[in-house]
Amino acid sequence: MRVVVPFDAAAPKTRLSGVLDSDERDDFARVMLDDVLGAVREAGHTPEVLSTEPLDFGPVRVDERPLSEAVNAVLAERGGEQTAVVMADLALVTAETVERLVNTEGDVVIAPGRGGGTNALLVRHPEFETDYHGVSCRDHRRIARNIGADVRECDSFRLATDVDEPADLVELLLHGEGESAGWLRERGFELDAGDGRVGVRRD
Amino acid sequence: MRVVVPFDAAAPKTRLSGVLDSDERDDFARVMLDDVLGAVREAGHTPEVLSTEPLDFGPVRVDERPLSEAVNAVLAERGGEQTAVVMADLALVTAETVERLVNTEGDVVIAPGRGGGTNALLVRHPEFETDYHGVSCRDHRRIARNIGADVRECDSFRLATDVDEPADLVELLLHGEGESAGWLRERGFELDAGDGRVGVRRD
Repeated sequence: MRVVVPFDAAAPKTRLSGVLDSDERDDFARVMLDDVLGAVREAGHTPEVLSTEPLDFGPVRVDERPLSEAVNAVLAERGGEQTAVVMADLALVTAETVERLVNTEGDVVIAPGRGGGTNALLVRHPEFETDYHGVSCRDHRRIARNIGADVRECDSFRLATDVDEPADLVELLLHGEGESAGWLRERGFELDAGDGRVGVRRD
Repeated sequence: MRVVVPFDAAAPKTRLSGVLDSDERDDFARVMLDDVLGAVREAGHTPEVLSTEPLDFGPVRVDERPLSEAVNAVLAERGGEQTAVVMADLALVTAETVERLVNTEGDVVIAPGRGGGTNALLVRHPEFETDYHGVSCRDHRRIARNIGADVRECDSFRLATDVDEPADLVELLLHGEGESAGWLRERGFELDAGDGRVGVRRD
């Protein structure tokens, strides 16, 4: 089992610019990446980081192309081996979540993200190729059906929650089990349950 | 196993008032309730609707009190029987989801909703009481710990997605397997993937 973790190193997490400055966003993206890598390792796998730029830790596979092309290049190499693709901003992911993903049956397993994304994917079919642009979970289902692959879902709130915008920080503060939640708390973030809907505030 | 489905019959789904009129919101809430009941039945259980008002189908247990009190009254009757509480607006729920919930081990099993809610709950501890007000998944964990109950999580995107506001309709159109998604499509709703983030539009 290969487990690939794509990481966009250039200006990550811009939708958090209202609450984190540029250096903080870089740091936060790296802490989340570390949480994902830790969960993959704890589940017994060796994660491979697929980054758009070299990083100061290794080994990292660098591919500057758009996500779909970079992932498809990995899939093309697999020679029958099953490959999981887990996004680097799934900071709620735990070893148990990774195990559930990789133990889900099917030629193609999709863990949808909120808003139609494909937050995690497990590919066991030699002809499957990704297309992350647009409503990718719908497109990935169609691509799988078109090649006669049995497509299944991994139904996980932890995999569905990519941390992109301030509302997502609520989930991290509530459910995060890695370093990312602590990173936020150290920088003064806390839940704001004042008026009905839960948000975050920063002291 | 008792499976209770609380339903707020008075002015449901007000946060959808921008896209559905009052009669439509009533209809839609009922169609979602039917989807939840259908999933519970398909999983082999007999759901009990716990409504704030009498409904035109039965049997329905009517309790006008706030949600926590009404649910706690059910829990107080259980006499050692395990009880699941599944919200009526979880329109993505399938029989498989219900089965996963009821098969999760633990004295108290919580399926968190986005934003800190408790969208589904399974109680196997005689002293546990609910408190749905506020950040209830956090409060329910604390209540469980305080009585020495083993508290577990049911990690499900389908259970985490209560359909409250227009952005949630995206998830229903993408992943709904019951009548609710069809109900939306019949009224002209479709995905709008025009400019990056996916939304819904109504023709």
